[in-house]
Parts: sequence; structure tokens; C-alpha cells
Amino acid sequence: MKANDNLRTYALTDIAHMKVHGRTNGGLSLLPLFWTGSGVEFNAKGSELWIEIEADYDRYEPWIVILINSVPVSRQMLTAGRYWVCLFRGMNPDEVKNVRVVRELQAMSADPGNSLLIHALKFDGEFAPIADKPYKIEFIGDSITSGEGTVGAKAEEDWIPMWFGAVRNYTYLTAEAVGAEYRVLSQSGWGVLTSWDNNPRNNLPDYYEKVCGLLTGDKNAALGAFDDYDFGSWQPDVVVVNLGTNDGSAFQTPEWKDEATGESHKQRLNEDGSYHEEDLKAFETAVRRFLAKIRKYNPNARIVWVYGMLGIPMMPAIYRAVDEYKRMTGDGNVSVFQLPNTTAETMGSRTHPGVLAHEKAAEELARYIQELLR
Amino acid sequence: MKANDNLRTYALTDIAHMKVHGRTNGGLSLLPLFWTGSGVEFNAKGSELWIEIEADYDRYEPWIVILINSVPVSRQMLTAGRYWVCLFRGMNPDEVKNVRVVRELQAMSADPGNSLLIHALKFDGEFAPIADKPYKIEFIGDSITSGEGTVGAKAEEDWIPMWFGAVRNYTYLTAEAVGAEYRVLSQSGWGVLTSWDNNPRNNLPDYYEKVCGLLTGDKNAALGAFDDYDFGSWQPDVVVVNLGTNDGSAFQTPEWKDEATGESHKQRLNEDGSYHEEDLKAFETAVRRFLAKIRKYNPNARIVWVYGMLGIPMMPAIYRAVDEYKRMTGDGNVSVFQLPNTTAETMGSRTHPGVLAHEKAAEELARYIQELLR
Amino acid sequence: MKANDNLRTYALTDIAHMKVHGRTNGGLSLLPLFWTGSGVEFNAKGSELWIEIEADYDRYEPWIVILINSVPVSRQMLTAGRYWVCLFRGMNPDEVKNVRVVRELQAMSADPGNSLLIHALKFDGEFAPIADKPYKIEFIGDSITSGEGTVGAKAEEDWIPMWFGAVRNYTYLTAEAVGAEYRVLSQSGWGVLTSWDNNPRNNLPDYYEKVCGLLTGDKNAALGAFDDYDFGSWQPDVVVVNLGTNDGSAFQTPEWKDEATGESHKQRLNEDGSYHEEDLKAFETAVRRFLAKIRKYNPNARIVWVYGMLGIPMMPAIYRAVDEYKRMTGDGNVSVFQLPNTTAETMGSRTHPGVLAHEKAAEELARYIQELLR
Amino acid sequence: MKANDNLRTYALTDIAHMKVHGRTNGGLSLLPLFWTGSGVEFNAKGSELWIEIEADYDRYEPWIVILINSVPVSRQMLTAGRYWVCLFRGMNPDEVKNVRVVRELQAMSADPGNSLLIHALKFDGEFAPIADKPYKIEFIGDSITSGEGTVGAKAEEDWIPMWFGAVRNYTYLTAEAVGAEYRVLSQSGWGVLTSWDNNPRNNLPDYYEKVCGLLTGDKNAALGAFDDYDFGSWQPDVVVVNLGTNDGSAFQTPEWKDEATGESHKQRLNEDGSYHEEDLKAFETAVRRFLAKIRKYNPNARIVWVYGMLGIPMMPAIYRAVDEYKRMTGDGNVSVFQLPNTTAETMGSRTHPGVLAHEKAAEELARYIQELLR
Repeated sequence: MKANDNLRTYALTDIAHMKVHGRTNGGLSLLPLFWTGSGVEFNAKGSELWIEIEADYDRYEPWIVILINSVPVSRQMLTAGRYWVCLFRGMNPDEVKNVRVVRELQAMSADPGNSLLIHALKFDGEFAPIADKPYKIEFIGDSITSGEGTVGAKAEEDWIPMWFGAVRNYTYLTAEAVGAEYRVLSQSGWGVLTSWDNNPRNNLPDYYEKVCGLLTGDKNAALGAFDDYDFGSWQPDVVVVNLGTNDGSAFQTPEWKDEATGESHKQRLNEDGSYHEEDLKAFETAVRRFLAKIRKYNPNARIVWVYGMLGIPMMPAIYRAVDEYKRMTGDGNVSVFQLPNTTAETMGSRTHPGVLAHEKAAEELARYIQELLR
Repeated sequence: MKANDNLRTYALTDIAHMKVHGRTNGGLSLLPLFWTGSGVEFNAKGSELWIEIEADYDRYEPWIVILINSVPVSRQMLTAGRYWVCLFRGMNPDEVKNVRVVRELQAMSADPGNSLLIHALKFDGEFAPIADKPYKIEFIGDSITSGEGTVGAKAEEDWIPMWFGAVRNYTYLTAEAVGAEYRVLSQSGWGVLTSWDNNPRNNLPDYYEKVCGLLTGDKNAALGAFDDYDFGSWQPDVVVVNLGTNDGSAFQTPEWKDEATGESHKQRLNEDGSYHEEDLKAFETAVRRFLAKIRKYNPNARIVWVYGMLGIPMMPAIYRAVDEYKRMTGDGNVSVFQLPNTTAETMGSRTHPGVLAHEKAAEELARYIQELLR
Repeated sequence: MKANDNLRTYALTDIAHMKVHGRTNGGLSLLPLFWTGSGVEFNAKGSELWIEIEADYDRYEPWIVILINSVPVSRQMLTAGRYWVCLFRGMNPDEVKNVRVVRELQAMSADPGNSLLIHALKFDGEFAPIADKPYKIEFIGDSITSGEGTVGAKAEEDWIPMWFGAVRNYTYLTAEAVGAEYRVLSQSGWGVLTSWDNNPRNNLPDYYEKVCGLLTGDKNAALGAFDDYDFGSWQPDVVVVNLGTNDGSAFQTPEWKDEATGESHKQRLNEDGSYHEEDLKAFETAVRRFLAKIRKYNPNARIVWVYGMLGIPMMPAIYRAVDEYKRMTGDGNVSVFQLPNTTAETMGSRTHPGVLAHEKAAEELARYIQELLR
Repeated sequence: MKANDNLRTYALTDIAHMKVHGRTNGGLSLLPLFWTGSGVEFNAKGSELWIEIEADYDRYEPWIVILINSVPVSRQMLTAGRYWVCLFRGMNPDEVKNVRVVRELQAMSADPGNSLLIHALKFDGEFAPIADKPYKIEFIGDSITSGEGTVGAKAEEDWIPMWFGAVRNYTYLTAEAVGAEYRVLSQSGWGVLTSWDNNPRNNLPDYYEKVCGLLTGDKNAALGAFDDYDFGSWQPDVVVVNLGTNDGSAFQTPEWKDEATGESHKQRLNEDGSYHEEDLKAFETAVRRFLAKIRKYNPNARIVWVYGMLGIPMMPAIYRAVDEYKRMTGDGNVSVFQLPNTTAETMGSRTHPGVLAHEKAAEELARYIQELLR
């Protein structure tokens, strides 16, 4: 190998032009990528670019995807350690390349050891400015929004990072179609009130005010995951909430019980298979409260509650809750939008929506958002 | 990170069941992957699998793609060095996973330093047998067959490994559709008589008898690239030759001159823009001779000369040559098949056929081959 | 022309096996086709078949489409008069052909003179039995359900029968995909409460109990259009209501005024562009009452309110109304389903959904109905 | 029905602006439509337009399709008789409508009684000028070019006019994509040397100089079908010949014998299933001679021999013949183009290419022709 003697190492703080995607703690000497879809972006005029990464985990390793000029060119597992990853080499030094390094794996509440840090860059050229996109979108969701199932064969059943994808994902695809920057908060299995298995602690709303509050462990604390999030730093034009699928499943699964405290919870079915009214009410209240919380921190955003990629059993309750919220607050900037259901043809791995389902959802959602933004 | 204490290192020679794809020298203590599409395949019943790779180059680095159960899950640049790459981890130890590690980059005649070697595996399970596929196909071609342009944005112009792909490629897709193992011999810019720039040394036929004869340098010699290829070890049912595109370009480009020897060559145009008859004849003779050579080593194969993904100016000459070959030899097992042209919509990077063009070509070619094999 | 001497004329009452589609008065000596999608079906084992038709109109002529073995082969305007139309000739006399003659034009409330009658058949073979389909679907809707815009160039603007289609229509396509017989009640411009221009008389519910009550004139009275419909004769498994689009438009259009009586009506907007609560309430009440009426006559049907092919502004009100209906009645067999919006690519003539939009809607609706019927 | 008192009858000779498509005898007092795709075109500014047609046949009735603003709106069988057909009514009298009435059925050599004549028009408006298209294409072919199989269910087997289509046809679609006027000469079952059943009289070349020479009978003689065609009146930019499919079949079918004369013919197979060299030579000579004949009458046209929608067994012979023709004449304006094969998915009725196959062929052929015309 012939070494490139022109490479120079840059601390993140030394880089003239750089875009950070996803909620972070703001400090750049060491950049943690907490959420799926988070990452860094450069306009790099040079021939060779490397990034220094530090990855760790107890069980679930992070993955990244590298995009050159908006096209994915590499996707790789990040095994534990601190090392350099080459983003490109041998390119025309006089052309500006848009480069994005994106976390493919959701924030991992199930693994306090999971972390992905950006330390530095090595480059032989100059960083050029990156134009801002006209819009900002925030997505909040569950495994669908985490892109679970967008990679791998239909037969795959293991719950492992390999099958999670950030860019073969309706979030990325919708943002690209609309021409928007975007951020994602998502957690597989979680809901707006409870998780799929009735755990009332596994809900997204409780952690909305933190940088990445659903993580656990001292390491994440030190990285600022539990810090208050500065909503003023990035005000979205649209907030898309894709929750309810796991809340619906909770009616069909056994009671959750905390062995330590004896606390338990169960969303109940009536004998005729319909939802127990009281529990459905609790779900609707959770939707309403979450809308109020989102509104509090995003006073001007259009809020869209989307639902339907894995069926629509909770849709009437979602409509009721949104309706009630609007009636109580007079907030007219909230709506509901049904996403297309996943079919045998569009199914991905792990019985989750595949790439074709995400593309279809993105096509319809982008069109709906474009109308909202008009 | 929690270490997996059950991992055990295997020399390639110790692996009970393994498939090697692509021409090699046969020795397995150290496995070089010379050609695009070459690689190793395992049926791995275990939870975690690693592969030890050694990559080097002067200028053009190799890339690999990893397929789990026939679906690409990772694609990465291999920077120089010897190191372990994790193929999967955390999977159900009781399920058999089909795993393929495939070289994404063509054999690099332009870089004597380019090499990709497989040293060993680390695994915590058992290797299961791999069933043979019913057919074997050999593909011989140029940049189209090397998958140049199947990765990256349409605007990309650098000639770098990043834009070459083995599996978003009509070769892989055709073989999958037919249900066949396959091997590829290809070189960007080369033809059956000369390269696109009239160099008569840059032709595929001259190197057909060697393992990977178009490579250069002592390292490749030591790896066995220039050894005679043992045709008896792998007799294809179908040989697909996709050459002629660069021979056609040679008529439009300046004379090639070897400054050292003073030797020169030029495929000439007549004043009216038509091809010079004598030079066209030389092309046809080269086609005919290559057919005879392929037949010599593959006595029972159907040979299909395919052409058309970047226009069909040489098609009459190809038909004439194939006709003349059949007339002279009585060999009825040879045919010509036109592939669909690439359009603005199906174009990839570097003005080469993109994934959509490869998919379309594979669909039509697979159907044609299936008829031949009936 | 050589005459076919084997043709024999049949009164409808003489035909051994025949299926009548669409609501009729039950008498068969003279069969009026009132609604779009209505028609006659035969399994004809013979070589040549004709049908005697009588068409009339003051302004808007009827059209028919002829299907042989479920494929449309002819579509024609029916000018005024009584005459024979050839359905097929020269076919193998020993094969059974399934033949359907379908009215392509909606019932025409705007033209008391519009009528389409079937008198008789001429045939040289035998009529074979027609197997019943496993399901029955009733569709109730407006111009979308009347297939307005499914024929003709995008630029067409005339409101004429030529642009209406019954089989390039989500109703027909959904029924075919589900494997169902179907009937349609529809009227362009009408709603559940008022028409697009605020006329409260132009609503579908008021006429639901009659054979085809929205028609006018003595001729239609004589044909039985205003007779009570015998719901017991054909109980649908699913009732699909696709109303609300024109009710939404009414908020945006001027007041309707009946010059004769001085009566007027207007669905009002608030100053901020939102819907006036009282008028919205009236819409919701109309939805609720229509559901109750449909239930009264179809005690076992799944009722699906569909909406969305031209936007979803009324969706919250529809969900509210359906919710309220279910709460008040305990009827759990009612649901709401959002259809995919029409886009620039899927638009038809007269700014209405085109064939591609109907195909997409049918694909999603059929899947939803199949789940309901499981 | 309310009569339109403004309708006025026009003899064809009285119409200010009118386009006649397809080869005719030039006289307009009575216009015969001999070939598939032939017809009349108007730019009609008025509200209502009728056409007077006279149809007859012994066995095979003609069909027409009506296009308004380039979209098919009606397709109907024409039973025997002279009568008026309404093309449109009730349209905006101030808008110009482009109207085409097109013969859907090929010229019927098998039925001397088949005729379709245009007598007159009734109209309440004005005929506007029709702009010429920039190119002209002539298509010559067999059942594929006659659109046999483009209508009807896959299971259909009767050889009847109903399954023939002129506009769901690669000829119409290619011409539309290129922006060209077009004419078609075609006959189901015929070839360049013989028909599918070895009849050497059933070849297209013998009749090329006549208006519609393959017809038979006194009526057609009187209509001018056997008159010399005036090639100067319409010089195509491109001549597309799609022949060879039936010549290929002739090798597989029994000998043809004329019982009257004792004359017989058979394209022979060798014992190994290959084509008999002498008979193949006869085919190639026929190709060459037809090219010479086409060139004689169309000195400036690009001639494209296309082939492949039902397999490519004759392609080597076609290439040889075209090559030989070019070598002998120096005519460089001739080429061969392979059309995409029909698949299970794109098959139509009567085991012939369906609409999807025609669309695919048109897409590729149009692109090829556009390059030729550059």
C-alpha cells in the first residue's frame, strides 16, 4: 500500500463545516450517535477521507451506513474498539463530495454498553460549507421507525442489529422526498402508553425531554444521554408520530409484572374480543398527553400522527384522542394520516415492513407532508 | 464488550464444508480471491462467525459484500492489512445460516499490488454441508460484467473500486434466477481483440487458460494467478461471453502506441463513418478464435455471445463471426443473444449500466438460458 | 354477409340460466339497467350471441361494456333506439363463454329520459348454469364510485357519459379481487348530507330504500325505479360507503338556494378556514343515521366507510361519526378505511381518479375486505 | 331523445381538413379501410360528430376503435350494413377534439367479403387543420404486427376478429412514442418466403407494390385494393419489417400441397433438428430480395428488420441475409433489431404477445428508432 502523505488529522472541533444529525449533547470534542439516523455530514473537497470511530456494546453492536452524494455505498457492522474507517479514497481532489456517516441501529435501551462515538477525521483536502435544507422533520416511533426488518431475508427471526436500517426506511426516504433534515426517536417494541408486552415504563413520551433518555447505564449518562434536550436548537416544521402498533399488541399479550415491586399492568380485552373501554381510554389519554407535550416544545410544528403499516386496529382510538386533544386545546395544527399496510410482497425480515413497504409509506407520507407545508 | 469464549479458529483446510467460488489455484491454506464474484460460502450452524482477511494494494483497494441467506447485509472497503471481519454475531445457534463473502471488485490488471486473501475463520458452531446447484455458468466480459457503475450516484466520474459491484450485477442475478453457480472473468475497458483505446494486448482471450492471467506482478505470480487453470475441475453448462463493446469503441478512439517498442494499433473508420472492412474482419477473426478456444476447454457447454447493454453497433459483425465459426466447425451449440439497451432511467454511475439495467438484462438472459438448458 | 340460420330468439324469461347484476324491479320481461355496474351475465355454449337493447335519453346517452371470459372486449355508446348488438360470433360452438354486458354509466338523476332496457337474446347454442360467487358487496358512493374520469385524456373537461366507467373502477376491481358479486349505488356530485354545491336533497341516504330512487320522471316510475327495494333478495356480506368528498366540497362552495321555495342551505367555514362546528355536526349526524339505516336493512353485513381518493379533510368527522354510532348502538361491525390519494401520475380525466388510482385503491381495499371476511 | 338540429351531413370530399391513415386508392368519395391501423382523423370543433360506415363480410367482421384526444374511448364490432356511428356528442362546441376512427382488424385475405367503407360525416361544427407529425413509419409483419392476441383472455383459442387490435399494438405505441404517422401491412400466418404452413404464395413481399394486394375477390378489386400503390404519395422515414416468425414455423409443420396443381412446398429440417441449408438459403434470399424491393420504392428510408417477440430461431439467418444484402448493394441504411421475447406474464390470448409484450417491444423499438432518426 502506498501511503497518502497528505492526510491530516482533524478533531471534530477543528472542522470548518460539518453537520451533525440527530439529538446530541452539543459538545463536539467527542460525538456520540445515540439514535438511528443520527450521524455526521461533510462536503469534502479532497481525494481521501477517514473517520475515527469508537464502538462498544455488551450484546448489540452498532452498524453504520456511508452515503456518498446521497447514495449508500457501504454498510458495516462496527465491532468493539477504537479505529479508523475509510470513507473514500482515490477520488478527484478537485470535486466536492457530500459524505454522510449514519447510525443504522436504533438507540439500544436493552444494552447499556452500546455506544458509537466519533472522535476525529483524517483528510487531504478542504471542508466546504453545507447548505441547510428548507425543512426539518422529527420522527417518533417504534420498531417500524427503527427500520427493523428492512434488511435480511424474510425468514430471519433473530432480534439482532443486522436487520435494522436507517436509510432503507420511510423516515430517511420521506425526508429526502420532502427535502428535509430529520431526526428520529424510536424504540422497538415500545408504545405511547405501554410496550407490546404491557410494560408501562416502555413508552416514548416519558423520555421526550431528554437527549436520549431511554438509554441506561453510567456510560450513557456520562455521554449526556440523560441531559435535558435543548428544543430551541432545532425546531421541526413537522413532527411525525408513528406509535400505537405496540399499544395495540398489548391487548393481545399477557400481563406485565415487575417481580421486584409486584407492580403489574395489562391492557384488557372484553370477552367478545373488543378492547376494554377503560384501558382504551388510558391509551387515548396517553396520546392526548403526548400531543400536548410535543406541542409544548414545538409550538409551530405541524404534528401528524401516522399509523397503519402493520394494520389499523387502534385507528379509531387514535382519531378519538387526536379529536379530543384538538377540541380541548383548540390546536388545529394536528392531523392523522393512515399509512399503507404491509403485504406479503412488501414484507421484510422478522415479519416487519420491508424496503418496499417503507418506500410505499414514504411516497404517500411525503405527499401528505408536502401538502401540509404548502 | 462481552467476549464470546466459544469461538474457535479454523484454518481453511480444517473446515468440513465450504464452497469456493471463482477460479483459484486450488490450494486452500491461503485463499486468494482474484476475480469479481469470487468468494467463499458456508452453511454455518452457530451464533457467531468471523473471517480473517488480508488486503493490499498500491492504488485500488478491494471491497467485499457479505450475504446472509442470499441477501446482501454488508458491503465494505477493505483497507490494507490483515484482520478479522465479523460476518454475524448474536444469532440463534441452532439455525443454519448460509453465508457468502464475495469480492465486489474485478481483478485489477492496473494494480499489481491489489490482493485479497482469506486466511482463516473463527466460529462457535458447526459447518453444515452445502448442496450443489444444478447448473454452472461462466461469464466473460468487460466493465459491464465487472459491474462498473452499479454503485454510486449517476454523476460519479472517478474510476475507483467503490463503484464496482458483483451482486447488483447481471452475472449474479442471472445465476440466481437460473439456479446456478457461476464464475466471472472480466476486465474493464478490455475487448476480444483490443481494449477501448486500441491496445491489442488488453484482450480477454489471451489469458483464458490461466487462473487469472491478466494480473501482473510477483505477488500475483506467487499466489498462482499465472498458473494454468484446471478446466476439468469445473465444467460450466453455459459460457456467456459479453465482449465487443470496447472493440466497438476502439474504432472511435485514437491509435494506441507502445512507446517502448514503437508498436501501434488502430481500428479504423472509413471516411463515411463506417467500419474499415479489414479491421472489422480482424475483430471477427478474434471472436471466432475465442469461440474455438472456449470450445476446446468446455466441450459440452452452450456458448452464448451476449451484447447490447450499451448499444449494438458490433452486432452484425458478431453474428457474422459466430456464423462463420459454426459453419467452419459444425458446432451447433453456440448462439447470440441481444441484451436490452441501457436507458436514461436505468443508467448507473460513470455512464455505465445501473442496477435497473442489470436487473432487466438478467431477467431476459436468465429466461434465454433456461430455454437452452431445457 | 352469410346469415346464421341457427339463431333463435329468447325472451329473458325463457333463458334457463342468467344472472342479473344491480338492483332491479325483479320482473324480467323487460329488464332496465338503472345503476352503473348493473348488467346481465350468461354462460353461453354456442357460436353466436346477440342482445336486443333499447336505449333512450334526453341528453346523456348510456354506454355499455361487453366482457368475454372476464376481459372487456367492447365498449360502446348506445344511441337512441331499439336494436340488436352482437356480443360474439364465429366462436367454437362447443366451448362455454362467460359473457357480461355491463352498464358503464351511472344512474342519471339529471336526465329523466335516460334509460337502458334489455329486451331479448338471439343465440345458436345453450345457456349453461353460472356458479354463485362466495361473497356479495354493495358499494355506495359519488363520482369516484361512478368511475367518472376513468376514461379519456387528462385534459377532458366536459361532463358527459363518455368519461364514466364501471369496470376500470375500484368497485369492479375490488369485487373481482375478493371474488364477489357486487352492486353499486352512486351519483356524481352527491354526498351523505348535501351535494358539492350544498343542495341538501342530493344525498344518497334518502333514496337507499328504493330500487333506484334518485331517478326522476314517469318513464322511470313505470320501470319500477321508485319501487321499494327488496333487501331480502340480495344480502351483502360487505357494504362499502365512499361518501364525504362532496360534503367536504360543500364547505368551499356558495350557498344553494331553491328559487321556488326560497329554501337555502350552506355548510359554513369559520373565519380561520376551519369547518363550522354546527354544520360539521350535521354531517356527522347524517353519517350516523345512514349507518343506522344501512344496518337496518343489512343486519349481518360488515360496513366499511372508505374515504381518501381525493384527499382526507373530512376524515376526523367521519371517524367521530362512526365512533359515535358504534358507541350508541354497540354495533361492532363497522369500520373506517382510508383509500390512497390520487396523484399527478394516477389522475384521470376531469380531475378525477384515473384507472391507476382505481387499481391502487382496489388493491388496498380488497386486502382490507379479505381480512374482514376471514 | 332530443334531436340535434344543427347536424349537417358532409361527403368526405367536402371536409376541409381530414387525415387518411393507411394505404388507399386515393379516391375519397368512398373510403375503404383495408389494413389494420388504417383510419380517418379529424380536428373537430363542435359538439356532436357522427360517421357513416358500411361494413360487410362473409365470415370475419371488421372492428373499429375510436380515439378522442389520443385516448381509446370505444371499441366495437361492426356488423353488416350501412349505418351511422356516433363518435361523440354533448361536448363543448368551442373546443377542438382530435378524433380518430381506426380499423382494428387486419386485411382479411381469408374473407373476400370483408370490407369496411367510410361514406360520410354528420357534424355541427367546423373541421380544423391537423398538423403533420415529423416522421412517417411503415410496418410490415404477420400476426404479431396485426395485434393478434392483444385482446381477450389468455385461454381464448378461436381465430376471430375480436382478438385483433390495432392500438394495443407495438406499431401504434412505437409511432406515438416517436411522434410519427404510420401505416401497416400485415397478415397473420404469413412470412417473407412462406406462411407457417409452408404455403409459398402467402408471403408479404409479393404484394408490396399493390394498395392491398393480398385481398381477394371482385369487391376488393372494385375498391382498388389491387391497384398499384403510389409510393411517392407517402415516403416513410423508417420501414420496420417484422417477418420471420412464420418462416421459422414452416420448418416444423407438414408440407403444403396445392391439390389443384399438385404443387407442393416444405421447409425441411435435417435429421439432427437443424434447418436444411438449402431451405434456409431460400429464406435468406427472400429476405434479401424483399430488402431490395423495399429500398427500390423507399430510397431514403432507414430499414429495420425486427424479430424476437416469439423467440429468435431465425435470427442468425436474418443477420446473414441482411449482411449479404448490404455487402452486395453497399446499402448502409439497413439494420437488425431484436425485440424482447414474450413471457408467461406478458402473453396475451391465442398464445400471442399480449398488451404488456407490445408495450415492452414498443418501448425498446421506439428508443432504437429515435437513435436512427437523430
